[in-house]
Order: sequence, then structure tokens, then C-alpha cells
Amino acid sequence: LNTMLSGLPTTIFTVMSALAVQHDAINLGQGFPDTEGPADLIEAAAAALRDGRNQYPPLAGVPELRAAVARSNARFYGIDVDPATEIVVTSGATEAITASLMAIVDPGDEIVVLEPAYDTYLPVVRALGAVARPVRLTPPDWSLPRAALEAAFGPRTKAILLNSPMNPTGKVFRPDELAFIADLLVRHDAYAICDEVYEHLTFGNARHLPLMALPGMRERCVRIGSAGKSFSLTGWKVGYVTAPAAIAACVAKAHQLLTFTTAPNLQRAVAVGLDKDTDYFTTLAADMQDKRDQLSDGLRAAGFEILPCDGSYFVIADIRPTGFAGDDVAFCRALTERCRVAAIPVSAFYDTPEAPRHLVRFAFCKKKEVLAEAVARIQAGV
Amino acid sequence: LNTMLSGLPTTIFTVMSALAVQHDAINLGQGFPDTEGPADLIEAAAAALRDGRNQYPPLAGVPELRAAVARSNARFYGIDVDPATEIVVTSGATEAITASLMAIVDPGDEIVVLEPAYDTYLPVVRALGAVARPVRLTPPDWSLPRAALEAAFGPRTKAILLNSPMNPTGKVFRPDELAFIADLLVRHDAYAICDEVYEHLTFGNARHLPLMALPGMRERCVRIGSAGKSFSLTGWKVGYVTAPAAIAACVAKAHQLLTFTTAPNLQRAVAVGLDKDTDYFTTLAADMQDKRDQLSDGLRAAGFEILPCDGSYFVIADIRPTGFAGDDVAFCRALTERCRVAAIPVSAFYDTPEAPRHLVRFAFCKKKEVLAEAVARIQAGV
Ligand SMILES: CSCCC(=O)C(=O)O
Ligand SMILES: CSCCC(=O)C(=O)O
Repeated sequence: LNTMLSGLPTTIFTVMSALAVQHDAINLGQGFPDTEGPADLIEAAAAALRDGRNQYPPLAGVPELRAAVARSNARFYGIDVDPATEIVVTSGATEAITASLMAIVDPGDEIVVLEPAYDTYLPVVRALGAVARPVRLTPPDWSLPRAALEAAFGPRTKAILLNSPMNPTGKVFRPDELAFIADLLVRHDAYAICDEVYEHLTFGNARHLPLMALPGMRERCVRIGSAGKSFSLTGWKVGYVTAPAAIAACVAKAHQLLTFTTAPNLQRAVAVGLDKDTDYFTTLAADMQDKRDQLSDGLRAAGFEILPCDGSYFVIADIRPTGFAGDDVAFCRALTERCRVAAIPVSAFYDTPEAPRHLVRFAFCKKKEVLAEAVARIQAGV
Repeated sequence: LNTMLSGLPTTIFTVMSALAVQHDAINLGQGFPDTEGPADLIEAAAAALRDGRNQYPPLAGVPELRAAVARSNARFYGIDVDPATEIVVTSGATEAITASLMAIVDPGDEIVVLEPAYDTYLPVVRALGAVARPVRLTPPDWSLPRAALEAAFGPRTKAILLNSPMNPTGKVFRPDELAFIADLLVRHDAYAICDEVYEHLTFGNARHLPLMALPGMRERCVRIGSAGKSFSLTGWKVGYVTAPAAIAACVAKAHQLLTFTTAPNLQRAVAVGLDKDTDYFTTLAADMQDKRDQLSDGLRAAGFEILPCDGSYFVIADIRPTGFAGDDVAFCRALTERCRVAAIPVSAFYDTPEAPRHLVRFAFCKKKEVLAEAVARIQAGV
């Protein structure tokens, strides 16, 4: 069997979700809401099943959704795109990331990846025969180590994989950091694959700025969004890629080899979602911010130190102040078994040796009463 | 951009479907029914949207569907499988094929592929850094060239990619042919990736026999089915892989990198479909056989010779008796533009030089009145 995949451990999300079920724990591990997405999207998806469009849609996506993605790019970020040639719908952001990497890299190319990194990034880079160049952000504020990043770029660099708002850190890259990255891309004639699935989940004064919106970046960026996170429907697996036409055409060919198309009824419902008024998106973010605050306050009261979080579904706790003797993996196991709350060890997002072992990721995309109960269990148990 | 993908032409299905739209032609090119799938499945999918299960399902698929796939393996082929460890649900058979190849091959491995081959097989093999060893079946009856097949197997052979019932030929591999392949697999310690999406679409006395059902093959085969073809819902993109546990675990890891999961409401509806009574499946095949006969008779009356077809959505016509001077590609273009009927040149399914240029594939998975009109147009125009 394939050497790389055989050696890959079961994803930490499946491991912790299974452990959570086993111990009847509240699952603050895998990032998915415990409420349903908007009823109008669900009804739109049901209605779209019934009007005779259940056969193959166009490979690049139904026209309604491609047009809606284009409108969304223009409305939120002033990015003008041609829906006919610059957008590809995929079966979720996972497929979008893999298809974008397939489109851009040749074996031997180097891809710069910022750690902590979402757990599929490095295996996908390797499956394609490319070489990952990990660069670590520096906790607790996850600042960009500019010298190290610059050193990671070289003659073989093909692209950077950039996730903002970032999972698991909750970091939202600032304009000056993005400008620094943009400058490196120009100097090394490289691309950026921008995983922006949490684009509508930013808090306080933080604002999501796509790298693609920066001067000179329009031709270098592949921007990825997803219905799962923007509409709290993580199971639908509808993602969308925005890229210059030549790249989009290549992403479409990769998509042809990976899934070919995505269920048309779900695509059409997501198109309805993208056209929702601004109020929907600000309320989504405000509700999530409220949950972030509730969970952060509760964890602080339990003795944890809480790292800054400006976006995403996740907050990271420093477990050292609680006096816990073991590492983050042991902590997460103990927390699930003894306090019946599941979380994710941040070391799972590192591939390089000597990952931090004192950080734990908690998902706050849960009902307030669930968060309250989780906090009560943790406070009682720690 | 990626060298292999950049060089890949747009899939013939998209090219011909676009040409069909442009010329208001009847599309007998891309293989999809022009009717909807069973109303009970569509209603099941709509109902499943509404009961609160729209977040990530388990990576390997919802338990209901894995159990239904296991029952279907037992009912139709006497293959006993453990739904918990031997089945992986994918986003369509395309993803299933790619994930299975990813799970099995390492760069440099050789994969035996029978030509004419479905158009994603060779590009996927190459994208993974594996080497395709094409072996041509011999028209008009697409018999297995046993000496050539034997010669294609060698010390680097990792697997054969087998499609039965076969697209585009309509061939259903016979037990003696499968036994010959099984013997090669044992001798060369190789696997088979079996694309069996047309498993329920066989005609006359032809019966689909999974290679996996042969003695000694249980541990060597990855069997792939799909809701698209079994339930006439090609847009849903729900596929399923049956494989021994060690391979299934590796397929699941590939699936994690490609899509992670598949929409739970569609999975649950497909589970309902797989449990349909035998009458549903025999009627599906009988209706399709009736369409095969109608189209074949009409094309024969128009002067074509029709090759044998025991399964799938497709029949192949030999265009030489019509006296057409050009090749199959020119013929398909002319047929679309002048007769307003689209079809697929069979040379598109060959990667090796000197492909046959006298064969054209017609899809008969269309309404009888549509087939009648297509035949009338062709008879008037040829
Ligand atoms: C696709 S399962 C993981 C969900 C997620 O994005 C996370 O928990 O980080
Ligand atoms: C996925 S588009 C091609 C459909 C099909 O199986 C065919 O026409 O051969």
C-alpha cells in the first residue's frame, strides 16, 4: 500500500470525536456547529432536489453558484472576477485545497506551510511529490517570523499555503503581514493558495483581508471559501475556488480527476446563502464572538491562560498554569475521560520536531448551554 | 502550473456537451439519464435535510449507508463484508477510483489499464507518479488479448484497473476472463481496482460478476459502486468502496485528503435505494436494454454496424459502412452540427498511438421519444 498514507495516523479529529462518543463527552474537538444552518438554505436544498436537475451539473459548478461566488468576491472585498472562467466549485474546501495544489505543483516543487497547520496540508503536499517547507508562527500571538519566512523561500518555491483566519490559532493575518508575504511572492515568482473558509468569522476589530485583494496579488492567488463554515452546514461539502483563468482551468482539470462535480441541489442552495444580506454575516460573526468570550472566560476561570483569538471556531488554551504535569495529548485524553470534555492537542498541527506541548484547542461553535456545561465540567475537574 | 494537467485537454464529455448545447443537439454523448431517479430517493434526500444531521458525518460514511452497501454485496454477489471496517463512502466513483489508486500505488509502480479506458484513468495514474501499462481489447467483440495482458504484468505491477460492465465498450467480462485476470494477480501479487458502477445495468444473459467474488480475490480487490448509475442520479456523486480492512483504512486516509466526507442527506437516501427490492434493479436493467435495442436498431437502419453491448449506458457504432470519409472525431463534430445529435469519438478513450478511428459511442440512457427523434435525425442526415 502507499507508503506515505500507510504511515499517516488516523486524523486527530476522528480520534478525538470517537473518544468523545466513548466517554459521553461534550465534543469541543472537531470543529462543527451543534446547531443547523439557516432554514432557508435547507429548504432551498430540498426544493432544488425536486425540479429535475439531479444529473451531472457542469464540471466547474452550476452557473447560479459561480455567479453568486463572483458577487460575493465583489461585495466583500472589491475583487472582480469572471464567473465563467475564474471560479470552480468543489466538493468542499478539502477538495479545493488538494485540487489547487495539484494544479500548481510539479513533483519536487517546494511549498511553504505555516505551522501550526491544518492536518491535511502536509500529507497532501507530500502525496503530490512536492516538498513542504514548514515555518513556525510564534505563540502566544502567532506573529509572523519574518526572517524565517524569508529564508524558507528559495528558487524551488512554487507557492505558500496560507490559512487566514487561521485554524487552529484563531489568527487573522494583518495587512502588514500580508504585504510582507505579497512581496516575497513577487520576488520569488510564487503563488499563494489561500484557505479562507473562516472569512466571515472574525471578531472585534479584526477584519479578514484576502491576500488576493492586495496590489499585484490578483494573478498569484487561489482563494478558497466554503459553505460549511459560512453557513454552519459542515456536512454539505460545497467549496469554491477563485483564481485567475489559467489557474482556474487547471484546478478544474484536477477537480475532474478528484470528483468531477458536486451535488447540484446543494450548490444551488449555497448560491442562495451567498446572496444573504450583510446582516446575516455580521450576526454570524457576532454570535460566534459571544461564544468565544463565554468559553474563554470560563477556561480562564478554570485556571488556563487564553491565547488571543480574532477569528475561526477555535480558541487555544495554555495548560501550564493549571499545573498539569503531562503534555497536550495526555491532557486531552484526561480531559475527555475525566471531565467528559473533548479538545484537540495543538501538537497535532505540527510536523516538525519539538512542537509546543502546552497548548490545547477548544471549539466554541457550540450552543451556549453546551459551552456552559463544558466549562462547569472543566472547572469542577481541573 | 502542473505539467501533466496543463497538457490535459478538456474532457471530451464537456467538449461534446458544450457543442451539443451550441447546436441545440440531442446529447447522446455524456452518459446521464434525461429522466430523474426514483421519487422515493429524492424525497428521502429532502427529508434527511430536515432532521438535524447536516454537520460532518463520519469520515468513512454514515452507518446506514455502510450497512446498506454491505447488505448489497451479500445479496447480489454473496460477498460478506464488515460495514465498520471494509466500506468507505466517497463523493462519487471518480473520487473512489482516485482514492483507491492513492491508497495502493507508490510512485514508480505500474498499473495495467485496459483500453479503451475511461478518460480519467490514465491522468490519475500519472498524477500519482505511477506508470500506466495500457493493454488494448480487440474490437469488435472486445475480447481480452491474453498474451498481451500477461506480457503487461511484471515485477513492478501493483494493480490492474478493471471496469466491468465497461464504458465505452458495453463489455461485461466473462467468468473465464476474470479467472484469467485473477490468476495473473495471484502470480504477480497484485491488486485490482474494480470500477463496477454499471453493475446493475446488464442485458440479456450477461450477468455482472465482481472479480472480488472469485476464489482468492477477496483480499486483492477494491470494488467500487455508485449511486449515480444504480439510481439514475448522476449528479448526487455518492460512491462506495468495498475492500479488505487494511486497504479500506488506506482508502479512508486518501478520502480524508480529497474530500473528507460526503453530504449526509444524500448518503442516507442512497442507503434507502440500495435496499430496494430486486424488482427495481431488474426493471432498471430491462428498461435500459429496451433503449439499447431501440437505438441499436435505429442506427443499424441508418447504415451503421453495431458492436455487441451487454451492459452500461453505451453502444458503439462502426461508422465505416456509412461511407463517411473522415475519422471519428470529425464524424462526431459533423453529426452534432448537421444532424444535431451529439456522440463521443471512441478514440478519446485511447492514450496509445493509432487508436481506432472508426468507432463512435452513443448513450442510450435517454427517453424513448428522445432516442426516436435522434434516430430520425441521424437517418435523415447520414
Ligand atoms: C474536516 S474535520 C475537521 C474540522 C475542522 O476543520 C477542525 O476541527 O479543524
Ligand atoms: C463524469 S462525465 C462522464 C459520464 C460518463 O460516465 C460517460 O459519459 O462516460
